[in-house]
Amino acid sequence: MNQDRYQNGLDKLMEYTLTDNIEISTHLKISEALEDIAPDVGKYIIEFAYGEIYTRKGLTNKQRALVTISSLVTQGTEPQLELHINTGLTAGLTEEEIVESITHLIPYTGFPRVLNALTVAKKVFAIRHEDKH
Amino acid sequence: MNQDRYQNGLDKLMEYTLTDNIEISTHLKISEALEDIAPDVGKYIIEFAYGEIYTRKGLTNKQRALVTISSLVTQGTEPQLELHINTGLTAGLTEEEIVESITHLIPYTGFPRVLNALTVAKKVFAIRHEDKH
Amino acid sequence: MNQDRYQNGLDKLMEYTLTDNIEISTHLKISEALEDIAPDVGKYIIEFAYGEIYTRKGLTNKQRALVTISSLVTQGTEPQLELHINTGLTAGLTEEEIVESITHLIPYTGFPRVLNALTVAKKVFAIRHEDKH
Amino acid sequence: MNQDRYQNGLDKLMEYTLTDNIEISTHLKISEALEDIAPDVGKYIIEFAYGEIYTRKGLTNKQRALVTISSLVTQGTEPQLELHINTGLTAGLTEEEIVESITHLIPYTGFPRVLNALTVAKKVFAIRHEDKH
Amino acid sequence: MNQDRYQNGLDKLMEYTLTDNIEISTHLKISEALEDIAPDVGKYIIEFAYGEIYTRKGLTNKQRALVTISSLVTQGTEPQLELHINTGLTAGLTEEEIVESITHLIPYTGFPRVLNALTVAKKVFAIRHEDKH
Amino acid sequence: MNQDRYQNGLDKLMEYTLTDNIEISTHLKISEALEDIAPDVGKYIIEFAYGEIYTRKGLTNKQRALVTISSLVTQGTEPQLELHINTGLTAGLTEEEIVESITHLIPYTGFPRVLNALTVAKKVFAIRHEDKH
Repeated sequence: MNQDRYQNGLDKLMEYTLTDNIEISTHLKISEALEDIAPDVGKYIIEFAYGEIYTRKGLTNKQRALVTISSLVTQGTEPQLELHINTGLTAGLTEEEIVESITHLIPYTGFPRVLNALTVAKKVFAIRHEDKH
Repeated sequence: MNQDRYQNGLDKLMEYTLTDNIEISTHLKISEALEDIAPDVGKYIIEFAYGEIYTRKGLTNKQRALVTISSLVTQGTEPQLELHINTGLTAGLTEEEIVESITHLIPYTGFPRVLNALTVAKKVFAIRHEDKH
Repeated sequence: MNQDRYQNGLDKLMEYTLTDNIEISTHLKISEALEDIAPDVGKYIIEFAYGEIYTRKGLTNKQRALVTISSLVTQGTEPQLELHINTGLTAGLTEEEIVESITHLIPYTGFPRVLNALTVAKKVFAIRHEDKH
Repeated sequence: MNQDRYQNGLDKLMEYTLTDNIEISTHLKISEALEDIAPDVGKYIIEFAYGEIYTRKGLTNKQRALVTISSLVTQGTEPQLELHINTGLTAGLTEEEIVESITHLIPYTGFPRVLNALTVAKKVFAIRHEDKH
Repeated sequence: MNQDRYQNGLDKLMEYTLTDNIEISTHLKISEALEDIAPDVGKYIIEFAYGEIYTRKGLTNKQRALVTISSLVTQGTEPQLELHINTGLTAGLTEEEIVESITHLIPYTGFPRVLNALTVAKKVFAIRHEDKH
Repeated sequence: MNQDRYQNGLDKLMEYTLTDNIEISTHLKISEALEDIAPDVGKYIIEFAYGEIYTRKGLTNKQRALVTISSLVTQGTEPQLELHINTGLTAGLTEEEIVESITHLIPYTGFPRVLNALTVAKKVFAIRHEDKH
């Protein structure tokens, strides 16, 4: 019965990860790493986060990525920021838009969160550039 | 010498507040309220936040509003969220896009921040609807 | 198809609200208040939060209430804290256990969050005592 | 046996509240308000916060007030900020130093926390000015 | 005069660390590491946190561990979370209860904090399993 | 036109970094590291943070360092805390004043943030002691 939500979630996740294999593997790596102690959490990410929230209408994938990144910069949760800078790029955000969004947050979060986020962004960009070679 | 930055900031602020008089008055009310104890802070908002950050290229006004709102929902700073739901609407975001952005944050901030933000949004929408009559 | 999750969620919510009518009405009041602008969020609270998370095995209702309250004290999201001190009492936590849990957080959050939370708790206790008369 | 710590804490608290009766009453009001549900928390504030931490050497009372205010602005815990702007003034900080400290935090917390803190400061200054008449 | 509080604190700390030597050494390692620059902080942890707060009545050791872990997951302070997942296990929480508590927080903190906390939990469980061999 | 603000900012930055070469290099290293993806952010730090905020009157350099450190301890942004413990020392704060300020925050942030900050402080002190040999 949750099969549809799971499949919808997986399909949606693919839209954020289809053009390359970096993020899907990251998503799967996290889910797999926690598979033994908390198998349901990976399921909730697919079914609820991707299957119910990301599949909603009203915002484009790029807009959803922008909203997600802005929240993670503000929280300072860097492992997830790394992942979602990746999914944002695959969803069609340019590197410039991501840098610009993080820079735009200076008046709202102050410099420390912004500097830490830009450091993560720089690392993600470098890995993706390498992968293209 | 800072005249240009101030004027640029004020011009940009107008873009977020031109179609109605709600937010500009809110911005000015905050600045005026603090004029006596901290006159420079209002100046920094115009010159730095609007004059230097909001006038940057690379994102549309709507995207900047989306990034701002997402950060404020995450922080839970409700007076500023109220203001920027207003500027977001003036910048061209629809009510639906704003509600959708807040809803999208459930997997990233949890329900409490989202519920508090939606309560603010509802209030802002109601005030603007009243003002149209 | 989500009917089961919704019903399970509603049943579980009842366990936290059956002995009196305070919290169910609070939960419903929040959902109803947001019904017009964000109808799905109330649905997600029932289906996901109550239907999928609260119905999991491994913790008692009292333990879940303790975990919830501890997180909300730490976040400082007071409207939700008020609601969940109520659900915690209905789930079987005593007033003393709730005060003790908040007090226990002094070394982890500092005094400000604890004092604000105790002020909320005092208010909730008073309302419930009144209702009994 | 804790009598000394309690007395030391009370003496130290007096240094922050002796020149006027605003804050001591605020401190006592908070303690009294929670006396019935959590009597020990007021005791910990006197014994631990004032009796052990504030009585330490190495910083002046003014420096301790500055550190406290900076943390509370950053946390956004406004009831405590109101209290400690008051104790800061009694400890010898000028209104200008307090406004300047809050303004200094713009690059570290962003504008929202700073604006909310200045609004609290303005209110405290006004109450103290009134009291002098 | 503080001897009793110190001894009570140390006794209580032992209850959280007696069945194995992992956490006591962790606690002592932190205290020892800071001994040279801030010797009193380790003393406050023993005397105030363990000697005054943890020795209070009204909650079991397991409940206190649950409250502590929930706050640390919410704050995202991972070094302390690692320590207190350890003390929680020694206090009698099962691995399943700890995972379940963290999972329960998804609706209150969102997925990022939960995923980071589960990663810490997995690491702690692995170290303790190794130590048993 | 911004030349003056930039130069003023750079001059002020020098006051926080002149007696040794540790922090200026750290500041420059961060700016240089982000030069390729976000060149303007380093400029804003010099022009706005140092050129406009740090050059304001009303607080000494030592007081500004104290305010900055207190905010960063509260936020838990450790890379920036490391940098500003360094600038604080160069601005004239003693190691004892820095440790004392962090210790003073126990009642306001709880032990976790304080312990993590002291660990950063210990590392910074050790590096500076080494550099003197």
